[in-house]
Amino acid sequence: MSDTRTNAGVDNISTYRKMFTWSKPGERTLVMMTAGNLATTQAVVSMLDERTKAPEERNPSILEVPSMFQAARLVGKTLRNVIRESAPDEGPDAESPFKATIILGGQIAGAEPRLFLIYPEGNFVEASKETPFFQIGETKYGRPILVRAYEPDMTFEAAVKLMMVSFDSTMKANLSVGLPLDLLLYEKDSLDIMAQRRIEEDDPYYNLISANWGEALKFAFGSLPDYKL
Amino acid sequence: MSDTRTNAGVDNISTYRKMFTWSKPGERTLVMMTAGNLATTQAVVSMLDERTKAPEERNPSILEVPSMFQAARLVGKTLRNVIRESAPDEGPDAESPFKATIILGGQIAGAEPRLFLIYPEGNFVEASKETPFFQIGETKYGRPILVRAYEPDMTFEAAVKLMMVSFDSTMKANLSVGLPLDLLLYEKDSLDIMAQRRIEEDDPYYNLISANWGEALKFAFGSLPDYKL
Repeated sequence: MSDTRTNAGVDNISTYRKMFTWSKPGERTLVMMTAGNLATTQAVVSMLDERTKAPEERNPSILEVPSMFQAARLVGKTLRNVIRESAPDEGPDAESPFKATIILGGQIAGAEPRLFLIYPEGNFVEASKETPFFQIGETKYGRPILVRAYEPDMTFEAAVKLMMVSFDSTMKANLSVGLPLDLLLYEKDSLDIMAQRRIEEDDPYYNLISANWGEALKFAFGSLPDYKL
Repeated sequence: MSDTRTNAGVDNISTYRKMFTWSKPGERTLVMMTAGNLATTQAVVSMLDERTKAPEERNPSILEVPSMFQAARLVGKTLRNVIRESAPDEGPDAESPFKATIILGGQIAGAEPRLFLIYPEGNFVEASKETPFFQIGETKYGRPILVRAYEPDMTFEAAVKLMMVSFDSTMKANLSVGLPLDLLLYEKDSLDIMAQRRIEEDDPYYNLISANWGEALKFAFGSLPDYKL
């Protein structure tokens, strides 16, 4: 799940998609989510799409690399190069004003699905049993509920609810994250996108969760015993 | 409420008090909490205490200023001077590696209690009906529950519970905040500290809240309807 708000200061708020997919149904499905400098992430996506080439010559190598590991290397290299190009005289990419961070997930036929967190320097780490999810961007407000309510055996339905609660906690506290949200579900070994939806401001489920989560939290808080002075 | 963890990297974790009080019971009670560079905040406290003077000559002006506004000006000026002294060639104080932020609250006889958030530059803002509480330091993890569960007419007992839940959410997610916690309660017009306690790792109430909040959150989460695919 990703939000769509970008801002350069509070005046310059716009809506941009931060979730991108590449898919050859039956052979591979890849999903990328971005955080950070919008010029950087748009350039990375354009280069991965090979949009500099004539449409008939495009053959994005992200659809050809033999493994998810190679896909992460490709994305990482592209990201690092874009940042360096914007700021050739800067220090480490992690401190560049043009920095961005990327989550890349997906599966290629014959191998397991994999999920990577890719840093501005182009290196990356992979999700594991002990670290089963990644967040990028404005991560802190939404983290406590993920830490407390995530279960490895959650259903898709409960996992979507959890992401909505987490994003809602962030959006209630911080202006830099905002609706609409993009949601994508991928089922292991399907090698195709299971569902992809945009959650707009009038989404009845999101509004139900947002309204009731406040009440449920207050009820949970009230159920604990008060401090004794 | 304040925690006591300070760290310079993950190796150098220590326990230091971050809550300081000045009181002339019946005339004034002031409480200060600090976040940021420890050398800066310790220097600010020492200077406010006049610890550079011989004990018999000390007469801290924070115990003499005529108003809470003047107290905030004094603290702000001291803070800004300490930061500038540590880094005379640096740019704005808010970007100094020696920066610190301070919450100052209290009451002086004849006036209302007041609460200020003091910035590294020495300027400050005051709490109001619309902004009834301040956080400094690692604020984001603990903010969503404050935003959702705070009520202006809470009892002291419920307010302490809320602060414990908020700190617990932060400590579960981030190593830079840790037990023990310092708690201070002040009742309007009492002009004296109502209660001051240190919450250690074996505190039965804190442990009850920490264990049960996870369960209460999961129950609250489970009470919301799942997403329909």
